[in-house]
Amino acid sequence: MAIKLYDLAGAETDRRFSPYCWRARMALAHKGLEVETIPWRFAEKDAIAFSGQGRVPVLIDGDKTVSDSWAIAGYLEHAYPDRPSLFGGAAGHALARFINGWADAVVLPGIAGLIVADVCAHLHEKDRDYFRTSREHRLGRTLEAVCADRDVRVGAFRQSLQPLRMTLAAQPWLGGDAPQYADYIVFGCLQWARCTSPFRLLEKDDPVATWRGRLLDAFDRLAGKAPGYM
Amino acid sequence: MAIKLYDLAGAETDRRFSPYCWRARMALAHKGLEVETIPWRFAEKDAIAFSGQGRVPVLIDGDKTVSDSWAIAGYLEHAYPDRPSLFGGAAGHALARFINGWADAVVLPGIAGLIVADVCAHLHEKDRDYFRTSREHRLGRTLEAVCADRDVRVGAFRQSLQPLRMTLAAQPWLGGDAPQYADYIVFGCLQWARCTSPFRLLEKDDPVATWRGRLLDAFDRLAGKAPGYM
Repeated sequence: MAIKLYDLAGAETDRRFSPYCWRARMALAHKGLEVETIPWRFAEKDAIAFSGQGRVPVLIDGDKTVSDSWAIAGYLEHAYPDRPSLFGGAAGHALARFINGWADAVVLPGIAGLIVADVCAHLHEKDRDYFRTSREHRLGRTLEAVCADRDVRVGAFRQSLQPLRMTLAAQPWLGGDAPQYADYIVFGCLQWARCTSPFRLLEKDDPVATWRGRLLDAFDRLAGKAPGYM
Repeated sequence: MAIKLYDLAGAETDRRFSPYCWRARMALAHKGLEVETIPWRFAEKDAIAFSGQGRVPVLIDGDKTVSDSWAIAGYLEHAYPDRPSLFGGAAGHALARFINGWADAVVLPGIAGLIVADVCAHLHEKDRDYFRTSREHRLGRTLEAVCADRDVRVGAFRQSLQPLRMTLAAQPWLGGDAPQYADYIVFGCLQWARCTSPFRLLEKDDPVATWRGRLLDAFDRLAGKAPGYM
């Protein structure tokens, strides 16, 4: 029985844009595991209530249910030890957690401040009010106000990626000679933007853009083929 | 023959404060290697000219000379494979490079903006003019202007440590169950501040402060015994 993954979808069913779901999808592809994705919207809390919480990704593998992208990656590593490793051992696993924290505390909020209004525009109609209300409450402003002046503020976002840029100056992937889960953690953030916004996050000659391009091409262009922008 | 390390010293010979030298000293201690440190000042470029460059740390191990803290850690890992590992394998080594980038691009500049005037005050007299001139040229302001309003700006610095804080909420060390070189990379930044400035960088109840305290205690209080502030 194929693995199933509840995967956030937009107005069009094939627009899959959750950064956390992309982390899980890339991890599954890295392990060479087939997956059947199940489109899910924020309004469909009932559909994933069996997981004991209300967010995606939720992975079902036989009688196992795992939610949270970090836990899913750990589950796959543990359950499929003979497949290519996502972490390269205990030290790699421990340090990937720092990258997960950096992505969630720096990269995702940085991107949200540039594109959150575009994300809203791509949501299914039944999700838009919930998304706008909850995010505007959290951010204290309208989504449009949050994204104002993004042409100016994108410079600070690009600067915030400097640790990644410095790493890629020395090695082709965060994981070293080959991509690992750490790469997918950060890539998922950029894929969120690519799937929802025409806004150019990265300059063309940025080594981060080159690295992103190689991840768009990975696994038979799994991410590159997904509906999105540039 | 003991390993030798050229180590930046301040006005007092035993005030050793370079964040890069602390990375190297903690790495040597982790490997259980004895080291003879040689105090060095910025004005003494001639003394390390043999290394082919002008900065410390410079490590001498028999007929080997290695400069740059990252290269020194890699050298020690390679030259002493039977001692406790600094990286825990190739994946850990690759991801530690990201943490090195984060420390150098985020943590060190963040700390510099709060304490660089204090650093200058602790330098040997023959280093102060060089340090002030070069840093003020780089920063575009007097050192005192750079550090103004630090009581307000320290909040943003503390926020910038959030990825580390998130990691330490899940595991005791960046390296996982035990400290690794990644821990020493970031710790070196904080030790730079501790050895030169009375300014309180971290709130007492910050998990980052607790983690720093455990590293001050490590290796028979190698770092904790060093002349410094709180």
